[in-house]
Amino acid sequence: MEPESASETSRQAAAIPHPVLKVRGADAIETLDHLAVEEPLEIRMGGLAFTVTMRTPGDDEDLVAGLLHAEGLIRDADNLDVIARYRGPDRETDPGNVINVLLKGDVQAARERLRRSVVASSACGVCGKVTIDSIRTECAPVTSEMAVPAELFPRLAAAMSTAQATFERTGGLHAAGLFDADGRLVVLREDVGRHNAVDKVVGHMLRTRRLPLDRHILMVSGRASFEIMQKAWMARVPIVAAVSAPSSLAVEMALAANITLVGFLRHRGFNVYAGAQRVTTVPELV
Amino acid sequence: MEPESASETSRQAAAIPHPVLKVRGADAIETLDHLAVEEPLEIRMGGLAFTVTMRTPGDDEDLVAGLLHAEGLIRDADNLDVIARYRGPDRETDPGNVINVLLKGDVQAARERLRRSVVASSACGVCGKVTIDSIRTECAPVTSEMAVPAELFPRLAAAMSTAQATFERTGGLHAAGLFDADGRLVVLREDVGRHNAVDKVVGHMLRTRRLPLDRHILMVSGRASFEIMQKAWMARVPIVAAVSAPSSLAVEMALAANITLVGFLRHRGFNVYAGAQRVTTVPELV
Repeated sequence: MEPESASETSRQAAAIPHPVLKVRGADAIETLDHLAVEEPLEIRMGGLAFTVTMRTPGDDEDLVAGLLHAEGLIRDADNLDVIARYRGPDRETDPGNVINVLLKGDVQAARERLRRSVVASSACGVCGKVTIDSIRTECAPVTSEMAVPAELFPRLAAAMSTAQATFERTGGLHAAGLFDADGRLVVLREDVGRHNAVDKVVGHMLRTRRLPLDRHILMVSGRASFEIMQKAWMARVPIVAAVSAPSSLAVEMALAANITLVGFLRHRGFNVYAGAQRVTTVPELV
Repeated sequence: MEPESASETSRQAAAIPHPVLKVRGADAIETLDHLAVEEPLEIRMGGLAFTVTMRTPGDDEDLVAGLLHAEGLIRDADNLDVIARYRGPDRETDPGNVINVLLKGDVQAARERLRRSVVASSACGVCGKVTIDSIRTECAPVTSEMAVPAELFPRLAAAMSTAQATFERTGGLHAAGLFDADGRLVVLREDVGRHNAVDKVVGHMLRTRRLPLDRHILMVSGRASFEIMQKAWMARVPIVAAVSAPSSLAVEMALAANITLVGFLRHRGFNVYAGAQRVTTVPELV
């Protein structure tokens, strides 16, 4: 049996090319990298707002059905009347990123369950209700003129590894580290959630009255997503570095916020996805 | 300057030992592994429910402060009156996992912002409002008697890698693959969010009327967390395998749900954290 693959459309949308500066030891090269696409999907129930989730476009109807099933709102396909793109009366909704659901069957039970499960989710970075536009209206771009030499970045990666006691032992914890402009570790936190580790770092600096962080570098294990960039922007962090890949929305946000975004930071090199002006003494382009 | 480390208390709580069966080629050994601790933290504002987030215990006050800052509810330490453990009138609240916040300063603006940002977040797996106990009351343990030979698991890992076109290119996408009892790939989905990839897989099977998945194996890239196990349980999946580490709550949930949980699945071997009875022809213990 052939496995059922995602549609061609969704495959094409799952990654987009983006210019990147690759720094490898004493060499640097400008090239194209592929970014995993991250976009918000708004889910409506009978036209009313239900939730927003960040996702890679493609198979959105399956995503919504699976999500409603995991929450116990539907049991099987018989509970689904319609799952379809939504084009509301307002011209602002992008039908590509809005799905409307109509349930059938025991809808009353689902509604009741839905009502009970409504909680304030703004706290959850994944439910990225705050779009780039709405952040932009409240947050000016980061103007920090801080700049650091290219050689500094691999040292950050080494310092994080050394400091990550628990991670080494379990392989299951993410870390966020805050460094000063000279590459000295100020605070490191670990958590099962990367966004929590960042919140713990920023919360520590807030409670010790050291915001804004406009002379600091924030480094995260794993990937850089929308929510990490949103937290960095709110704290006015000029440089964010991630061990793994950034998403498309993370890069878009970095550009909007004037944040320098470094990805794939390893001891041998790193990629610069936005704000390369803050990386000095970049090796000669080869 | 010495970096400021987390308190000893939080370090101790970040990982807990758990018995594990390590299968490596033709060898198997029973040993102790360390699991990253994942527990729900309930955040209240003035005693009222605000949100729930899954996190690793430790520096909870910093986590809450950072999270409120990222959401724009507070600007600096002056906006915080009290962040403290909460022991409510009901005896059921675990004060170790509940934080109560009182704001000061321009509280009205924060309240208004909070009110606007309330959306239905049940959809978001990270906001794990559904606890193991509440799932248990609705979901019976998975009774599937499906069992698979140990040799099958490394083949799943190989099949996932082969099928993951986008992941290889961007390094930024998670994948979820559903396999039948003979290890044949039924459906694979990729997404920036691992939970979305799982929702897309389950949603696809729901919409094609193939639930429950009690004769299937669900494999995910990266780690196994609470939310992955919750989705697997709802879909009645008897075996879940992850490329990386499971969290403490994922293991706890697997045991409660009678789901076999395999972690660190690579081509050379894997670890069994729960439900080893479904793994047959296990090599001789050395």
